[in-house]
Amino acid sequence: MLSGVGVSPGRAAGPVVLVAEPPGEPPTGPPPSDPVAEAGRIGPAAELVAARLQERADAASGEAKKLLETTAMMAADPSLRTQAEQSVTTKQIPAARAVHDAAATFADALRAAGGYMAERVRDIEDVRDRLVAELLGVQAPGVPELTAPSVLVARDLAPADTAVLDPAMVLALVTEEGGPTSHTAILARSLGIPAVVAVHGVLAAAPKDLVVDGEVGTVEIPTGPVVPFAAEVTAAAVWNGVGALSDGMRIKVLANVGSAKDAQAAADAGAEGVGLFRTEFCYLAATDEPSVDEQRKAYAAVLAPFHGKPIIVRTLDAGADKPLAFLSPDPEPNPALGVRGIRVGRQRPEVLERQLEAIVAAAEETGVQLSVMAPMVATVEEAAWFADRAHEAGVTRAGVMIEVPAAALVADEILNVVDFVSIGTNDLAQYTLAADRQLGAVAALNDPWQPALLRLIAMIGKAANEAGKPAGVCGEAASDPVLAGVLVGLGISSLSMNAAAVRQVGAALAQHSEDFYRQVARAALVSHTPTDAKATVRAMVS
Amino acid sequence: MLSGVGVSPGRAAGPVVLVAEPPGEPPTGPPPSDPVAEAGRIGPAAELVAARLQERADAASGEAKKLLETTAMMAADPSLRTQAEQSVTTKQIPAARAVHDAAATFADALRAAGGYMAERVRDIEDVRDRLVAELLGVQAPGVPELTAPSVLVARDLAPADTAVLDPAMVLALVTEEGGPTSHTAILARSLGIPAVVAVHGVLAAAPKDLVVDGEVGTVEIPTGPVVPFAAEVTAAAVWNGVGALSDGMRIKVLANVGSAKDAQAAADAGAEGVGLFRTEFCYLAATDEPSVDEQRKAYAAVLAPFHGKPIIVRTLDAGADKPLAFLSPDPEPNPALGVRGIRVGRQRPEVLERQLEAIVAAAEETGVQLSVMAPMVATVEEAAWFADRAHEAGVTRAGVMIEVPAAALVADEILNVVDFVSIGTNDLAQYTLAADRQLGAVAALNDPWQPALLRLIAMIGKAANEAGKPAGVCGEAASDPVLAGVLVGLGISSLSMNAAAVRQVGAALAQHSEDFYRQVARAALVSHTPTDAKATVRAMVS
Repeated sequence: MLSGVGVSPGRAAGPVVLVAEPPGEPPTGPPPSDPVAEAGRIGPAAELVAARLQERADAASGEAKKLLETTAMMAADPSLRTQAEQSVTTKQIPAARAVHDAAATFADALRAAGGYMAERVRDIEDVRDRLVAELLGVQAPGVPELTAPSVLVARDLAPADTAVLDPAMVLALVTEEGGPTSHTAILARSLGIPAVVAVHGVLAAAPKDLVVDGEVGTVEIPTGPVVPFAAEVTAAAVWNGVGALSDGMRIKVLANVGSAKDAQAAADAGAEGVGLFRTEFCYLAATDEPSVDEQRKAYAAVLAPFHGKPIIVRTLDAGADKPLAFLSPDPEPNPALGVRGIRVGRQRPEVLERQLEAIVAAAEETGVQLSVMAPMVATVEEAAWFADRAHEAGVTRAGVMIEVPAAALVADEILNVVDFVSIGTNDLAQYTLAADRQLGAVAALNDPWQPALLRLIAMIGKAANEAGKPAGVCGEAASDPVLAGVLVGLGISSLSMNAAAVRQVGAALAQHSEDFYRQVARAALVSHTPTDAKATVRAMVS
Repeated sequence: MLSGVGVSPGRAAGPVVLVAEPPGEPPTGPPPSDPVAEAGRIGPAAELVAARLQERADAASGEAKKLLETTAMMAADPSLRTQAEQSVTTKQIPAARAVHDAAATFADALRAAGGYMAERVRDIEDVRDRLVAELLGVQAPGVPELTAPSVLVARDLAPADTAVLDPAMVLALVTEEGGPTSHTAILARSLGIPAVVAVHGVLAAAPKDLVVDGEVGTVEIPTGPVVPFAAEVTAAAVWNGVGALSDGMRIKVLANVGSAKDAQAAADAGAEGVGLFRTEFCYLAATDEPSVDEQRKAYAAVLAPFHGKPIIVRTLDAGADKPLAFLSPDPEPNPALGVRGIRVGRQRPEVLERQLEAIVAAAEETGVQLSVMAPMVATVEEAAWFADRAHEAGVTRAGVMIEVPAAALVADEILNVVDFVSIGTNDLAQYTLAADRQLGAVAALNDPWQPALLRLIAMIGKAANEAGKPAGVCGEAASDPVLAGVLVGLGISSLSMNAAAVRQVGAALAQHSEDFYRQVARAALVSHTPTDAKATVRAMVS
């Protein structure tokens, strides 16, 4: 029995499929005894890798299909292969190393070419890793094709892994690293499958089968094979579709979306609007900065299902941790503490201006109630700078994300210069606790129930109520039906979450009154630990 | 005229000496036309590099001498050279690349051997970089030997650079990166030389001479050569050696120290004690965890000048950003948000216990008034855990650093379980503003005058006064004579700084009363920007 941090509830069991890591840099020796034969291994390996990728591309659709097809083409390309073959014979190095070195030369050339070409570096590296793994006889990196329902075990899942994941085949997710706000956790919650992260030792234990409890955060290695079972689907919570407390006080229940597909799912789930529209998708797919018209079309496709409803659009959040080809930030020692979000916008105001123009046009076209906010704002000056630009661009309601502790501490001043604020609890927790949200070793610190974090949210709630302006929450904390009540009690007036949580949170909020949630919030604030806070509040609301 | 962030006041001018960066990975081609001649270049280059290092070692003393001697020996070692020579001829690659690859093989072997051997990896890499630079005909990396008083220009200075720096030859420091709390800034202030950091474009401008203004933060490129001049030494401020306000209220003026030499300098400067004794030096010099007895001796040498006086010892602060051979942390995506300080202590409590035993023994031996504190505490639970262990080890006064925003937010609860707190303003600013203290691009955010940071310090000061327990500041903010008054007005009862600032801060504090500093602090708290806060307070105190 191993334990970690349960990040998506439910129990499930089944055979384990491992998400392998890239094979790393292969050794330069020993020199092959028969260099010609060694070089001859490269061609067939490349064909095999290309064929496997093409097979998966044929079975996939949308973005995943495109991604897999591009990679398959690169694997089949003869130039990488030829260069690697030559260096096996001339330099007397193993085939795997020759492929690695040849790929490095290609990657350098692509990087130097910039633009679209530079963006292909990731694909070359993926091909390289698959080919090196094949030549070394180890498992190919990334999520393998699942042929039966399985428990996926990984060090941590990257955003790219999730593009090629078939949700129907995943019984549960277990990771060695990661925290409550890691990609793995967010993915699991949005798919409604059990997940436990920060399970130290699970990779070393190399289990054949696992029984996963995403509620208590444990992972059991059974003594024999288990009969696979998926998380029981909890009976759909009863919710009338209007976010309100038992005393009638309105609390908007909104959704976080990042694509037109998400938006449709959110509308289908009954979300009253969108509390966080992440616009990065529009830039990630592009090879250069998309034109205002391209952006307008892309945004309109997301806004369309919410005609007449409130939508908060967040402007581009890029940085060294989320690099975009056309912004090309320098590498940073701590990307999470670097030039991100509005800091990029201040360096490149013309990019922000074009995005605002496209957002306003898309909102007019689709008839939504538009609000726009900027990410990573730390100071009053930054908030005022953004609000001025947004208002000039024709945005009626301009706000900022509060995800940097400094912004929370001066929320009263910030609310003088913006129309609303929205709290990003994931990053706010990461910075407040100085604990990387992607790092398993500090996952216990990075908990939205930390009394220090709740105190910061209380300050923001109080400032918003005094200013008579709305403060929402759009981090993962909003999707926890128990924590949602605490947030309302702290003065938060809207909650935005993944579509899968909308119905349950809507139903939970309707159980109690504002007065009751204020009491609940006070109990949470005076708790000494996150565990105490959670236990006290659970006992009160159940 | 370029501008940056002035981090150490004063004007100076002189010829520029560039601190070169490591040459990076040399290309694998083109193949040498005469491989034997190419291989023959390696031996003489290695001898030249070894001789230059030995020459500098002869002129140096202490740690710098040892460091330079070790590196010189490695450069002269024939095995690296032989392996590189062979691979030039067998693999037909340029000499620089062959040296690079051979060094990689050596580094891998050393890393695999662990312990003392693993610690030598840094030295091999230094030799490699010097040898590659020599073979490529570019400047050797690091601080060159200065033959005349010069303005040093660098991307940023690393701690290792400072070991081999001759302060008498440095007129001013200018860096492209770095912030107010970077190593460069700390070094400049402790040496009392003008410095401007985050001067974007200074490397590209490649100036021959510079006029540096560390007060306003500008760097002027003169049209012709300038007559070098050093910062005028300000007349030693008048201070009677007892830290007190004009109304007699005591505010202890203490020093930050990290070695026996620092401690002697601090005592000579008139510090009333030590507010921050960084114990890392004892571990950095060691190849494995030092024994309790070795630690006791090392600590006693630092404590000795402060017989009968208060000393706050900080327990080991290591992590992925400050790796130690025997703790060997995994690499992390954001080391500043990773397993650091007390987080390491909780994983390895036996290391902490041995350190506490050595600290208590050293304090008894030297007769100092001992307090001990832990770094990077984020929660009440961590604070209680540390205080219990320290008290059990015989420490009378156990406290914690407050450098994580979460700890500041629950300072009232933390003060229930510890005897004192000490604010590390450098890290507290970095996390509160989510702005890397080493990154030039976010230096303007990372300012100790940020109203958000002052609000957090005010919370801590209030909590300490209500608990009747002391709260000190040991970050760089304490060494600014103007900001020092603000800190006192926020409820801080001791200030700890580099020895060079002691006299000036002591003299400045004595100018005004507690009531006056409270007014000053209120004015700073309601300012909208760091610039406003600074200007308002300067006008009030001058």
